[in-house]
Amino acid sequence: MSFDMVATFRPDLPPAAEPWQQPPPFSFVGGHNDADSVPFGGLAEAAVNVLRREGQALATYNLGGSPLGYLPLRQFICDKLGVRASMPVEVDEVLVTSGSLQALDLVNEALLSPGDTVIIEQATYGGMLSRLERLGVDWVGVDLDEHGIDVGHLATVLDELAQAGTTPKYLYTIPTVQNPTGSVLPVERRLALLDLTRRFGVPIFEDDCYADLVWDGERPPTIRSLDDGGGQVIYCGSFSKSIAPALRVGYLVADEPVIRQLLALKTDAGTGALEQLTLAEYAPAHFDHHVERLIAALRAKCTTMIAAVDEHFGDDVVVTPPKGGIYIWLTFPDGVDTGALSAGAAAAGIEFNAGAGWSADPAWGARRLRLCFGHADERSIRDGVARLAEVYRASTALDR
Amino acid sequence: MSFDMVATFRPDLPPAAEPWQQPPPFSFVGGHNDADSVPFGGLAEAAVNVLRREGQALATYNLGGSPLGYLPLRQFICDKLGVRASMPVEVDEVLVTSGSLQALDLVNEALLSPGDTVIIEQATYGGMLSRLERLGVDWVGVDLDEHGIDVGHLATVLDELAQAGTTPKYLYTIPTVQNPTGSVLPVERRLALLDLTRRFGVPIFEDDCYADLVWDGERPPTIRSLDDGGGQVIYCGSFSKSIAPALRVGYLVADEPVIRQLLALKTDAGTGALEQLTLAEYAPAHFDHHVERLIAALRAKCTTMIAAVDEHFGDDVVVTPPKGGIYIWLTFPDGVDTGALSAGAAAAGIEFNAGAGWSADPAWGARRLRLCFGHADERSIRDGVARLAEVYRASTALDR
Repeated sequence: MSFDMVATFRPDLPPAAEPWQQPPPFSFVGGHNDADSVPFGGLAEAAVNVLRREGQALATYNLGGSPLGYLPLRQFICDKLGVRASMPVEVDEVLVTSGSLQALDLVNEALLSPGDTVIIEQATYGGMLSRLERLGVDWVGVDLDEHGIDVGHLATVLDELAQAGTTPKYLYTIPTVQNPTGSVLPVERRLALLDLTRRFGVPIFEDDCYADLVWDGERPPTIRSLDDGGGQVIYCGSFSKSIAPALRVGYLVADEPVIRQLLALKTDAGTGALEQLTLAEYAPAHFDHHVERLIAALRAKCTTMIAAVDEHFGDDVVVTPPKGGIYIWLTFPDGVDTGALSAGAAAAGIEFNAGAGWSADPAWGARRLRLCFGHADERSIRDGVARLAEVYRASTALDR
Repeated sequence: MSFDMVATFRPDLPPAAEPWQQPPPFSFVGGHNDADSVPFGGLAEAAVNVLRREGQALATYNLGGSPLGYLPLRQFICDKLGVRASMPVEVDEVLVTSGSLQALDLVNEALLSPGDTVIIEQATYGGMLSRLERLGVDWVGVDLDEHGIDVGHLATVLDELAQAGTTPKYLYTIPTVQNPTGSVLPVERRLALLDLTRRFGVPIFEDDCYADLVWDGERPPTIRSLDDGGGQVIYCGSFSKSIAPALRVGYLVADEPVIRQLLALKTDAGTGALEQLTLAEYAPAHFDHHVERLIAALRAKCTTMIAAVDEHFGDDVVVTPPKGGIYIWLTFPDGVDTGALSAGAAAAGIEFNAGAGWSADPAWGARRLRLCFGHADERSIRDGVARLAEVYRASTALDR
């Protein structure tokens, strides 16, 4: 008789993954990017050059260097953040991670225990919510407006938590190209947010994964760079959005003692060296030009998607044009349930992110949804949105 | 005043990493490999070809395919295991991991809770011991002889645990090129081990990371392949030892329901695609020939190291020649403390793995040590061993 291995597993695991299926024809989920913009020729050239020059170093873990990551890549990250994000960074303040998801996991492992509380944005990255849930961590959401986090509401939340005797372990914020709302937090709010959280002794976890994709270079200094007192902000970024998501290279930036504590938790013997080598070889000469072209392609798709939403949904939907990135966030009238809508959409070959999974309060998110435009081509965007509107009208007609 | 972020961290973290330092002149630690054998030209060619052909797929997570890993790589793993390890495997029984360390972490996460007990080999991989310690898991060691795990002692251990009411969560074994002793478990013992653990309802976690480096192709079928009842064995392997450790590509093999449960725990959005693409392009035509050459290079270094140990340590040390791999395991007379020796060795520019950290019982391991020969060149091996013998004689002279 076959041994039942799964019966020996812990009882508290998440459900097993379903067998993989090809995505449907109109797939508007996930951080996928524009296929025509992948600089694969440049990456191929970089891979060959760096392997022929330094390939022997693959014989040693971490290429024989620091476990913080390949030094030329960390140097590029410093240079990039200095120029693009107004943030001076030293190479030993950078830890290269296996995607920014590992960055989230390392920070969470360092800070969070079951029963802890964190502050998040009212609408936020779904992958963070699922992580917090799995860790048994509670959260409180802070309101967002079209510019990002509402500092007045943050003050209320901090006060209420303090009165309840709860010190939140961090404030998790996506200030630049907020996910999923696409806002960019103005510099005055960044300063106010720093001031406020410092008074309450709350660290900030600044997720800047989409920040390289700001439409027109209007990128305020990072919150971390504005932290005059110092030490209050852990920052993370990624090459997934600017180069390619299938490459798994992200990074954490924090003060050196923090980085070395996080490094002690990174027990994977280093992030893939071939990806680090290739990026470090490619990026210094090509990153800026590539990102400029990528942004133009994404912005065109965004315009197409918003026009299609306007055309087919009309007044039924509010969409605030994002300041960059690969997604738009739609708000439907009261009573609409985008979770229910997603079932009908799936039958019509459409997938999107229902708002409940991207919201601190699922009830608040129920009439919202995220539509990603990065990967679909222009025609699929137009046809998919039109078809989604049909599904929506059919469902609301049924409701009436 | 600067914010003290580290003070907000959990109190139970491992110590922060020390600032990185260049390895000493005679470094005999770590799974590093022979630099002259890295097939970087072939990898460069493969990277170019596959990027030019399939580079656009980098725009999607998991290259637009299954999160189990790039299909041609999983197919190669199946083909390789079928031929080299006598193990038929289906592609959906393979989960590509970010190195075999992630494989260890996924299996541990699925099976282990604090206070659990596992069975390990008397001498075993130090990275597994540190993981178990961090997880708050107890272990019981089983004796090894020159052929590997002692099945008679395993029976005693299983009986004693059963009498104490403890069901161990798994038996972790490295049957082929055991780490650190270099033995290869004969097929009869593999069958006996399966029979015995099945009677006690204990799963087997078979770590085959070094198995491609068996000196002369005498590789018995894997334990998993011998599991007639089915379902009892989770298997892991790696390309770190056969191709390059800085590439982070390993794999788990188990029944499909087990693989899908483990996949649900792999929340890193996939293993690096460039490394998967490049390996899958390189390996089918080149793996066998490359490994044959690599083994010849490693075997020559092993011979050099054993000869140097014989010459300089003489009767003070027992070393059993390994059947493959990149390390030898030395046993010193009673009373020697290789932990203390390592401090003196460090002052002389030598590093090795003291036995306590690679042993179920640190007291048993105290007079043992692991010396890696994969990365050092022949001259460093000779000079380093000679110098280590000097340090050893000086320390034993002091003791007398």
